[in-house]
Amino acid sequence: MQKIAVFPGSFDPITCGHESIIRRALPVFDKIIVAVGENAEKKSFFPLEIRMKWLKMVFGDEPGVEIIKYSGLTVDFCVKMNANYILRGLRTSADFEFERTIGLMNKALTPEIETVFLLSAPEYAALSSSVVRDILRNGGNVSKFVPAILAAEMNSSTGL
Amino acid sequence: MQKIAVFPGSFDPITCGHESIIRRALPVFDKIIVAVGENAEKKSFFPLEIRMKWLKMVFGDEPGVEIIKYSGLTVDFCVKMNANYILRGLRTSADFEFERTIGLMNKALTPEIETVFLLSAPEYAALSSSVVRDILRNGGNVSKFVPAILAAEMNSSTGL
Amino acid sequence: MQKIAVFPGSFDPITCGHESIIRRALPVFDKIIVAVGENAEKKSFFPLEIRMKWLKMVFGDEPGVEIIKYSGLTVDFCVKMNANYILRGLRTSADFEFERTIGLMNKALTPEIETVFLLSAPEYAALSSSVVRDILRNGGNVSKFVPAILAAEMNSSTGL
Amino acid sequence: MQKIAVFPGSFDPITCGHESIIRRALPVFDKIIVAVGENAEKKSFFPLEIRMKWLKMVFGDEPGVEIIKYSGLTVDFCVKMNANYILRGLRTSADFEFERTIGLMNKALTPEIETVFLLSAPEYAALSSSVVRDILRNGGNVSKFVPAILAAEMNSSTGL
Amino acid sequence: MQKIAVFPGSFDPITCGHESIIRRALPVFDKIIVAVGENAEKKSFFPLEIRMKWLKMVFGDEPGVEIIKYSGLTVDFCVKMNANYILRGLRTSADFEFERTIGLMNKALTPEIETVFLLSAPEYAALSSSVVRDILRNGGNVSKFVPAILAAEMNSSTGL
Amino acid sequence: MQKIAVFPGSFDPITCGHESIIRRALPVFDKIIVAVGENAEKKSFFPLEIRMKWLKMVFGDEPGVEIIKYSGLTVDFCVKMNANYILRGLRTSADFEFERTIGLMNKALTPEIETVFLLSAPEYAALSSSVVRDILRNGGNVSKFVPAILAAEMNSSTGL
Repeated sequence: MQKIAVFPGSFDPITCGHESIIRRALPVFDKIIVAVGENAEKKSFFPLEIRMKWLKMVFGDEPGVEIIKYSGLTVDFCVKMNANYILRGLRTSADFEFERTIGLMNKALTPEIETVFLLSAPEYAALSSSVVRDILRNGGNVSKFVPAILAAEMNSSTGL
Repeated sequence: MQKIAVFPGSFDPITCGHESIIRRALPVFDKIIVAVGENAEKKSFFPLEIRMKWLKMVFGDEPGVEIIKYSGLTVDFCVKMNANYILRGLRTSADFEFERTIGLMNKALTPEIETVFLLSAPEYAALSSSVVRDILRNGGNVSKFVPAILAAEMNSSTGL
Repeated sequence: MQKIAVFPGSFDPITCGHESIIRRALPVFDKIIVAVGENAEKKSFFPLEIRMKWLKMVFGDEPGVEIIKYSGLTVDFCVKMNANYILRGLRTSADFEFERTIGLMNKALTPEIETVFLLSAPEYAALSSSVVRDILRNGGNVSKFVPAILAAEMNSSTGL
Repeated sequence: MQKIAVFPGSFDPITCGHESIIRRALPVFDKIIVAVGENAEKKSFFPLEIRMKWLKMVFGDEPGVEIIKYSGLTVDFCVKMNANYILRGLRTSADFEFERTIGLMNKALTPEIETVFLLSAPEYAALSSSVVRDILRNGGNVSKFVPAILAAEMNSSTGL
Repeated sequence: MQKIAVFPGSFDPITCGHESIIRRALPVFDKIIVAVGENAEKKSFFPLEIRMKWLKMVFGDEPGVEIIKYSGLTVDFCVKMNANYILRGLRTSADFEFERTIGLMNKALTPEIETVFLLSAPEYAALSSSVVRDILRNGGNVSKFVPAILAAEMNSSTGL
Repeated sequence: MQKIAVFPGSFDPITCGHESIIRRALPVFDKIIVAVGENAEKKSFFPLEIRMKWLKMVFGDEPGVEIIKYSGLTVDFCVKMNANYILRGLRTSADFEFERTIGLMNKALTPEIETVFLLSAPEYAALSSSVVRDILRNGGNVSKFVPAILAAEMNSSTGL
């Protein structure tokens, strides 16, 4: 059976931390679906199309990666995609507590889906999309924190 | 002196985790008042009347449990009810950090009131009202997470 | 049914933190048994007799407190004493993680016994027997950290 | 070179915890700039002018303290003020996780600026502006939690 | 390339928690090597031969599992075994902090080896070999905590 | 008044993490005393003379650093050295919990001494002397983890 993992998130925007987890997890799975959440209730900083375009720019050449938008429960999306794994990165123990709650609830909802975790690289342990948005909002430079191919475009964006 | 405890929350909605803490704490106290918070500033998912009706369905036969709505500071409500104890469950260390802040402030405000904690049962360690709401919002099935008597009604609710 | 709680520990030596938890918990229970662990494998700093003598000096006038030594599993001791509760104080989230493990295992071994937690008073949040021993070992003054009635005797002790 | 530290916050309102950290840090630095954030996106409970007036009432006689409002990235403000240090207090491990993220990102943005931490005094370990606001909102008394000189005025404020 | 994972531990003794992680991880890897540490400096409770015999009784029929003893650095053992993954379970945030340290150091020593984590099942979140040893040492019954096939033999063992 | 800080530890052996904290803290203080603990009860891996020799090799040219051995309580040593500050690094929230306990007890013993914390650099967040000893004990290479000037000598040491 093919090993398909879903890496869910809002990717608002993608950071070096996301990219690192996905690339490091590629050898574990046959395919990783980067699942970009559409959340009707929470306004995103960057529109869905931009977030997806950026993900495609970063992983365009990578045959093992697919970028797909989704809404609803993550486990329902996994079932639809025949994915048996959810992939997540862990930075801090606050992350762990949060992810443990989500992971155990997902397991209770759909026992055949396992959440698999990798440790964030130490240089990205304090990095998050929310930090990147905060810097952008205040006119700072995010080049150290996002994939090189996107830095110029993100720095010149104005929240769009 | 009668041992009266207040178990405060928004119960939006009640979960198996709440029910388990209350039932396990019953032998410790003479009465447990389930205090359902009315918060003018935060819109609840289920209206107050529904939240209280569901609590009454779960604890209707239990002489040691009363369901009362309240607003204002929890310690002020305790004083009004002659309750010397606040009852809380602890799931994770994130919970603990949060509860410790609240508990110490309550103690500073009203030193004669003690907060008493029980550990959540491990099977409910990842369960919260917010998780239940999230599943309902996405059309999922919450039967594993809420008292059996309420499952059908909650699953068919649409946020009301 | 009488509400009897066991407060287990090695009390090597008793600190103001222990005393505070016990006195604050007295109204919750009909009796609190301070259970002083004899651990054949771990050498204590103060001998069992001294540890018990000091506890008796602190709680001698308190009808609701009994000081009893024990060995073996804490839950077995509870059953023998007809105690349905274990009492513990929580200082920090590290404490919580440790106590959660013990508490859940005790519950798995003997489901009818509940562990009940109080928060340590903030002024004792960094206090432990091990800190007191460390100060004594280095010739420091522990008066701020142990019950007043014991301070002089402890400060002049040499580990005995 | 002068040792200038920035102590950033919204001080909505200042608490005894803030005051304690600033006074204890005074001997470490030549000057501490209390930097009061203006956040266009997040409505404050007290208006900026009131928050600054209260800080000035508390630190008016203290030559080593300046009260300045700012917006934008904290590190940019530090550079503008020739400040090489950011001062922060740590209450709990939840605080630590949060501060670590901010501190490491600030270091990544501006490596010459160090964040220096002091431990909150234990009696203020559960105190925060948000707790004070919550008490005020519910008509409680905050005298124990804010500098004495401000207590009467704050208790009679109505969120202003 | 074959996906081989090492699951290192002392397994002193194996618990239901270990068994659960290994079985749940089987679909992720082609082979899982249960690597039983020989630690010359730390005396184990059960001798190495017994620990290995018990692991073989539990996983005897499982073609994807091998039981091998090792000493030295775990990453060196992985290299020798052509294993690119280390498998670990996470129970609590204390676990996470510990595992993060080990995982990052292993990554620094041997960057091509990834540590992959699964969440412990909630019913085993408080279970550890050390808890099992503690119960055995005090004459308690460990049947709920170890694989069924081993319960009788372990309960009648006396530390051996 | 001169700003003198004590950086206490066993430095068994010094790591890049220690070196980084000391160098980053130099601008904050007029002098940093690296205080090398002699602990009669705990056998060190490297003898005191070697540990001190290595510290002197690393900081030999640094006028603001002194290397001094000490025993007894750290606060007593500070008083003797006219040091008003204790310097510590923070890597993780487990570190924080530990340091908070020590720091608050030191403050209770000697209120005029403040503990000042810096965040560990992310690349050293998982590094400790104990990890270095573990690698050395197993014949591994510690060059990435210790000051460059010491790497060869440490790698060829056999625990001495």
